[in-house]
Amino acid sequence: MRKFFSAFAVSTLLASPVMAANAPAARTPNDIVAAAPAADWKQIAPSDLLVMDLAPGADGKPRRVVIQLIPAPFSQGWVGNIRKLVAARWYDGIAVVRVQDNYVVQWGDPEGENPKKAKPLPAGLERVPEEDYAAKLKTVVGDLGKARDLRSARFDLVFGDGVRKFAKPVMWDRDAYADSTMILDGWPVAMGGRQGEAALAPIGEDQPVFPEKEQRRLWPTHCYGMVGVGRNNSPDTGTGAELYAVIGHAPRQLDRNVAIVGRVISGIENLSALPRGTGDIGFYKSPQERVAIRSVRMGNEVTGLPGYQYLSTDSDSFSAYVDKRANRKDAFYVQPAGGIDVCNVPVPIREVAQ
Amino acid sequence: MRKFFSAFAVSTLLASPVMAANAPAARTPNDIVAAAPAADWKQIAPSDLLVMDLAPGADGKPRRVVIQLIPAPFSQGWVGNIRKLVAARWYDGIAVVRVQDNYVVQWGDPEGENPKKAKPLPAGLERVPEEDYAAKLKTVVGDLGKARDLRSARFDLVFGDGVRKFAKPVMWDRDAYADSTMILDGWPVAMGGRQGEAALAPIGEDQPVFPEKEQRRLWPTHCYGMVGVGRNNSPDTGTGAELYAVIGHAPRQLDRNVAIVGRVISGIENLSALPRGTGDIGFYKSPQERVAIRSVRMGNEVTGLPGYQYLSTDSDSFSAYVDKRANRKDAFYVQPAGGIDVCNVPVPIREVAQ
Repeated sequence: MRKFFSAFAVSTLLASPVMAANAPAARTPNDIVAAAPAADWKQIAPSDLLVMDLAPGADGKPRRVVIQLIPAPFSQGWVGNIRKLVAARWYDGIAVVRVQDNYVVQWGDPEGENPKKAKPLPAGLERVPEEDYAAKLKTVVGDLGKARDLRSARFDLVFGDGVRKFAKPVMWDRDAYADSTMILDGWPVAMGGRQGEAALAPIGEDQPVFPEKEQRRLWPTHCYGMVGVGRNNSPDTGTGAELYAVIGHAPRQLDRNVAIVGRVISGIENLSALPRGTGDIGFYKSPQERVAIRSVRMGNEVTGLPGYQYLSTDSDSFSAYVDKRANRKDAFYVQPAGGIDVCNVPVPIREVAQ
Repeated sequence: MRKFFSAFAVSTLLASPVMAANAPAARTPNDIVAAAPAADWKQIAPSDLLVMDLAPGADGKPRRVVIQLIPAPFSQGWVGNIRKLVAARWYDGIAVVRVQDNYVVQWGDPEGENPKKAKPLPAGLERVPEEDYAAKLKTVVGDLGKARDLRSARFDLVFGDGVRKFAKPVMWDRDAYADSTMILDGWPVAMGGRQGEAALAPIGEDQPVFPEKEQRRLWPTHCYGMVGVGRNNSPDTGTGAELYAVIGHAPRQLDRNVAIVGRVISGIENLSALPRGTGDIGFYKSPQERVAIRSVRMGNEVTGLPGYQYLSTDSDSFSAYVDKRANRKDAFYVQPAGGIDVCNVPVPIREVAQ
């Protein structure tokens, strides 16, 4: 049985000159995305979208933010709460209360900390435990492919709840925060928590299941645009009523400390270009500075919403896109980086007619 | 002679439990900065500051951006050009022409690409070669300190031009973009370019000089707020007349492809919160959207400017600050990251009365 999570073996694969030699020199990552066939794009279900409409800006223009909710095996307790909060129209009338430069934009009930004035939460919200900040990896199924070319390899990760996902590796080597990082079915994810190596079982054979204590953990990473759940100091206090979006360099120290529930796929500039708050940690000092949230609806409740698609992680187009972002040789570049970090691989999203 | 650049030896140091055990559990990185003694702060010479005043915003408030120029051994050809451009008052009247979300804000002559209308550049600007995107490391001088505690260690890097700098390591292990990263006299820097190991010479002894072909290269990294030189496709075409600041996740693929000449130390929100351009790669589509730059002056030309200080890289306070950012255990955190990337270590800056 071949070893799978060996840092040595996989970093050799990543460094394979075969990958670079296959691509014409002048193509850019955008060229690859533009040329991707229709089959390489996956539809995002409108029922997995939050459509947040802010009050118009000084120019009177509408300000819409579209957020894709993260799928299983991640953060589903909080995602379920968010669906309930939308159904109860709880978010309608709350506000953006904090904009801290190079960090986060946060929205919630401005009176949330005042027991006498706080907006009552709907019944039935789940109190989600801290352990749900990461998912447990039960086993790995895969095929290393021919000629050690990572683009012909295929690994599926199987989680404790039976969810099975294809992972596109970004760095199997350790980065500063995790043992390895990947794009998992369109989402940036880190893995850690288990020293040593795990076995890779060939597709079609019975899979060994990692003993409970040795199960690795995987968690979504705090990349630009990711949306998380604000909370108080106790790690199970975040309901999903208070949310934030990352608007700066990835604050990966938050990974596994707060729940990531989604990411902004349209309209990030309606959050990231807001005036910075001048209060402590970027809170707006006066109510006048806050930006009202008119409504939050699920995508399937909004008429006229375009469709949204992401470039499938499983596709050769996506593999070529990651390789090209890591090894740019198009006209402007004189020195390809030779690598990339997981938060520097934005997953391509496009709008299509519904 | 002890080996210095061995990834194994140094990662063992970084993982030393001694470092974590020394610090009280409840301190935050900000607590450490607030408690740093006056001697740990270094003054930034006003003659190394650019003071850029934008036209006031819609609210009539002044919009000032203060940029610290990078010191030798980095980018001094371009820095010299910038000093000449300020002396000629060339920047006065140009504009912010591009704001691309999660990437850069760029300013320059809006007619710069039109030979008939472009603002003439002052005489005497240097054409700086591509090789100056990185500095050559001539030798390393140091003391590993007691008990392998990295906080008692001291290494100086000596460059080809005789510049000698103390480096605070962030990751001696490879990150996605470089063999190692560090904060070098207050600046985030990456090192690469030489396989194998280099010798560490004890302080006071004659130093071995690396053979020319084996000299490592060090370069400043594209972290949030860093300022670089716009250019055309030929790598020596950037004069310093067109500049940009990073306003998103570190675009490290630009490292060694453009010259970094400084960083924003005050007023970044006057750039990062500007409306995003809706043209190609974030250019403003109409002249009305551009933000006029009224003037750019050296800090020593501006009356009433506060003094600026940075927390010295050499200080124990800085070491404790980096360790704490990498291993947060204060009230909010349930899972310390156990590491940090170089662009997630903002060097503390403070204002003081002049």
